[in-house]
Amino acid sequence: MASCVLAFDFGGTRARCALVGRDGSRLALEVRDRPAEADGRGWLERMIQAARELRAAHPEHAPLAIGVSFGGPVGTDGRIHSMHVSGWEHVDLAGMVSSEFSLPCAVDNDANLGAYGEYRYAPDVRGRDLAYFTVSTGVGGGFVWKGKPFRGAHGLAAEFGHIPVCPDDPSAPVCACGKRGCVESLASGRAIELAGREALKAAEREAAEGFNAGDVFAAAVRGEAWARPVRDRAVGALAWGVASILCVLDLPLVVLGGGVTQAGEALFEPLRARIEGYLPLVLRGRAEVRPAALGQFSPLLGAAALAWDRLDAEHG
Amino acid sequence: MASCVLAFDFGGTRARCALVGRDGSRLALEVRDRPAEADGRGWLERMIQAARELRAAHPEHAPLAIGVSFGGPVGTDGRIHSMHVSGWEHVDLAGMVSSEFSLPCAVDNDANLGAYGEYRYAPDVRGRDLAYFTVSTGVGGGFVWKGKPFRGAHGLAAEFGHIPVCPDDPSAPVCACGKRGCVESLASGRAIELAGREALKAAEREAAEGFNAGDVFAAAVRGEAWARPVRDRAVGALAWGVASILCVLDLPLVVLGGGVTQAGEALFEPLRARIEGYLPLVLRGRAEVRPAALGQFSPLLGAAALAWDRLDAEHG
Repeated sequence: MASCVLAFDFGGTRARCALVGRDGSRLALEVRDRPAEADGRGWLERMIQAARELRAAHPEHAPLAIGVSFGGPVGTDGRIHSMHVSGWEHVDLAGMVSSEFSLPCAVDNDANLGAYGEYRYAPDVRGRDLAYFTVSTGVGGGFVWKGKPFRGAHGLAAEFGHIPVCPDDPSAPVCACGKRGCVESLASGRAIELAGREALKAAEREAAEGFNAGDVFAAAVRGEAWARPVRDRAVGALAWGVASILCVLDLPLVVLGGGVTQAGEALFEPLRARIEGYLPLVLRGRAEVRPAALGQFSPLLGAAALAWDRLDAEHG
Repeated sequence: MASCVLAFDFGGTRARCALVGRDGSRLALEVRDRPAEADGRGWLERMIQAARELRAAHPEHAPLAIGVSFGGPVGTDGRIHSMHVSGWEHVDLAGMVSSEFSLPCAVDNDANLGAYGEYRYAPDVRGRDLAYFTVSTGVGGGFVWKGKPFRGAHGLAAEFGHIPVCPDDPSAPVCACGKRGCVESLASGRAIELAGREALKAAEREAAEGFNAGDVFAAAVRGEAWARPVRDRAVGALAWGVASILCVLDLPLVVLGGGVTQAGEALFEPLRARIEGYLPLVLRGRAEVRPAALGQFSPLLGAAALAWDRLDAEHG
């Protein structure tokens, strides 16, 4: 019987659980969308059920510990606080999961664990500390320093999405964080889609069915006039965030994941150029900027790495 | 004979050396201005001479190690790079000082050591990690995480002065760092003085003899119309820098030193208000923002702490 850990990743609307080997290999995976009506407890029960099915289907893999990635703030006491899911305020998620499976369990937020997953399991990181941006419905961040996720004094470090870009511009979009013109309110998938729809409307064009941020990048590459300023504003805000964190952290590697990064070089090429322009000369050309090697699985695999750490700490 | 360390602090135009006890007490101090014509070697010789005089005058204190604070970038190899003093490019300053006194010597930049000096010796820090801004001719920064100065991958972390504030504004001042509208180009003592002089000129008034940034803060408090927008822009830029680093680091304490902070509450009161406005709600009210307890001596005492660390490391 091969040993493994059980990893969960609770996103905004979707959750995953997987059995993961020590080398980061996903031995088995289940994905579930959150039912619209489910509160935190209902969703957790659904995912616990999914994990039980996973274990039953793979009796040859015995999980020894659990790691949970959570898409929202996690306090220094390990309690989660969801801004989106009702009933998940100040909840001891790790304790609940631990008692369900009678296994040790650790939790952290998805952006910290996205960073840690890339650090531990991306093929050519080779122990380089790194910062991770997740550019999805929102914009989150995490970073690894000396091989450990950096959590800050209150577990609130790496709020990369809320670095100010144009907070004093009264025309800048308001963010859920309570101020205007932060990275997230300009460069998240939702912000880009919204700005794209407005630009199309101003150009007297219709948005296609399922229009999203990816369509903006594709249209900008094709040279469509409505798309370029939308892309440039979003890329500029993201570059601003990256440059700001490099001024603070001087990290050798910045990795970007999340749905918006599926735009590929249509995003990364202009992004790299804008970052350089926002950096002081001494920092230019020092950090590599690239897509997350583990794609959508960075936080899930970071949760697995956390579970292995927990196990190693218990066994001295 | 009481043991102590020898600390140097090389600033832009002035240097200090001191004998410092393990508790951070300054046992003896010498201060020298840099002669206008002196290159790096000339200035170093002058300060080595000052240190020899210090030792000769205090034979009861025997230094066991040396720490050097340097007002410019220090590479991960310990070599210094001055942008202001000729002949100090890629120089092994620690090695030179060490061989002069036949004592172990460590070097770091003045902002890292300002942070570390406050961390180690400010009366009520009590082991809290902190960020340090020096707001002087330029704007520098440093921070302490888990009790150690954070240096980054290339020794370039904490370039707080070069966080972008309005880099795309063609009317924003250009900085020596190679871009426009960073914290330093808006909020340094030089920037405030220059903007103050321009505002006075526009108001058809004369700048008094020795006019500097402090006069802008004093006039703004008195309600003088020319001064308020100058103060507000500088305070806004500094607040932006502080908010940006708090979004990245979530530190419990931000300390500001350097000549401009001698304005006291005329600076700190509006600064605290502006910082809150630039933070996401979850981070508001979490960090204390206050003047450096050690005033102009934070980097010198940080250098002393570094020397004690060096000694402790050698003696295992």
